[in-house]
Amino acid sequence: MEKLFGILEAGGTKFICAVGTGPGDIRDEERFPTTTPDETLSRTLDYFRRMENRHGKLSALGIGSFGPLDLNPQSATWGFITATPKPGWSNTSLASFLSESLGVPAFIDTDVNAAALAESLWGAGTGLKNLVYVTVGTGIGGGVLSGGNLIHGLVHPELGHILLPKRGDDAFEGNCPFHRTCLEGLASGPAIQKRWGIGGGNLPPHHPAWDLEAHYLALGLQSWTLSLSPEKIILGGGVMAQEHLLPLIQTKLLKLLGGYIQHPLLTQERIGEYVCAPGLGTRSGLMGALALAMGLH
Amino acid sequence: MEKLFGILEAGGTKFICAVGTGPGDIRDEERFPTTTPDETLSRTLDYFRRMENRHGKLSALGIGSFGPLDLNPQSATWGFITATPKPGWSNTSLASFLSESLGVPAFIDTDVNAAALAESLWGAGTGLKNLVYVTVGTGIGGGVLSGGNLIHGLVHPELGHILLPKRGDDAFEGNCPFHRTCLEGLASGPAIQKRWGIGGGNLPPHHPAWDLEAHYLALGLQSWTLSLSPEKIILGGGVMAQEHLLPLIQTKLLKLLGGYIQHPLLTQERIGEYVCAPGLGTRSGLMGALALAMGLH
Repeated sequence: MEKLFGILEAGGTKFICAVGTGPGDIRDEERFPTTTPDETLSRTLDYFRRMENRHGKLSALGIGSFGPLDLNPQSATWGFITATPKPGWSNTSLASFLSESLGVPAFIDTDVNAAALAESLWGAGTGLKNLVYVTVGTGIGGGVLSGGNLIHGLVHPELGHILLPKRGDDAFEGNCPFHRTCLEGLASGPAIQKRWGIGGGNLPPHHPAWDLEAHYLALGLQSWTLSLSPEKIILGGGVMAQEHLLPLIQTKLLKLLGGYIQHPLLTQERIGEYVCAPGLGTRSGLMGALALAMGLH
Repeated sequence: MEKLFGILEAGGTKFICAVGTGPGDIRDEERFPTTTPDETLSRTLDYFRRMENRHGKLSALGIGSFGPLDLNPQSATWGFITATPKPGWSNTSLASFLSESLGVPAFIDTDVNAAALAESLWGAGTGLKNLVYVTVGTGIGGGVLSGGNLIHGLVHPELGHILLPKRGDDAFEGNCPFHRTCLEGLASGPAIQKRWGIGGGNLPPHHPAWDLEAHYLALGLQSWTLSLSPEKIILGGGVMAQEHLLPLIQTKLLKLLGGYIQHPLLTQERIGEYVCAPGLGTRSGLMGALALAMGLH
């Protein structure tokens, strides 16, 4: 009999729960808003219990979650959300709580590490061992696969919070509560909204907001290219739904690298193979949670 | 009989050649200036041939080299120095030339990746699987061990060339020919010399040069901490011989991280365990080349 897996993409705005046996066989899916930990986790448990009644026992649960997370398997708080700015959620047990309540093994990683994994298995980076997945939306975060392993070290990558040079014509003071003018503080969805007084979804494609947005994102990509040496950088998230943004970022990245790194993909002709959209659309995170449950990390 | 290894640290200024059976048993060592590729590689071959006459056949050769390097084992130019700004050295075969001439297998990586490996085996990061080694000298470069593997992806890390915000009181225009105000352009030894008109070795410890230098290096460390999530960052190279610099960098890094990443080492009490000097002093690169020869990568 095929194994049935529990799948959870735990986002700061919504939780997406699903069950399935593989990426081509998702049997059920449900989403609900992220409210308090008590309410949200009860609803999650409830969902998986209903699914077990209907489809049979789960073999494992995979969780891709917002963070920061404790991913140290030796730690007493493994699988906890640690000190998050999200009210009420600091020090919340996610993985061990769900694992113990359901009586199934749980695997957890950041939502973006999970997305990077899924894109390397079934998406735009299939077969690659070194790739970066970045989401640009309410926040900016990234997951990294390096040498075939998802990066965990002191903690896990937090790609959105690197400090950047502000462009001379940008008077916006940045809105990251920790760093002001880090990438997230300058280029997240809320930063666009606050700088221009209009959300990105309502700014026309030729508005100067996009040139500036592409500039800051390209600065991030310049830094990740040099630090992480990925074979591909995949850009997802709500802001990237603006399709005119991707070619702008590609061109600006090449300019910022200044020809220092020589590689056939780092050319105007082939940059689209290096910086691209997710192959799994908006489902990289959910598919990544499935991959974790399947033990493919 | 113990295996004898050939060891080469190929630097842009000098080559260091050695033979030995392990880190505690270096049998001979010689250094000479890096001139033309022909002359320098002849001298290198000559050295290892003399050593074979004296000590017997080498089992393998390990090379830590300046770069950029082609480290793709599938490439026809594997082990070549690729497009380096160093005159005459672009497209120089290092690993296969020496391997074929000596009739021994050769292993090659960047000098800084080699140094990171050695520090994880026998130095300040013994036992760690995630660490960064950075050299601050004529240039700024870094090697990265992630999940126990040296990072190779599209190419290899080039940590010194990330773009940084210039500090408001710094009028220096930066001296990186590729990026002007990247970390190397703002904080390498030659950048200090050019900005202040005096080399770092002749600037007193309380000179404002050091506060600025620590600021830029801390910005680099902030970025690497967030992108690479290492368990330790080891700072070597000629500029770091100024011992008053390390505590300044440690304090400034904590300030720049702004409490966003929570970890016991990221505190004023324990930051010295996270950012520290090499355990192998100035020999991390050479010991790394030995580790490559020994197949410990």
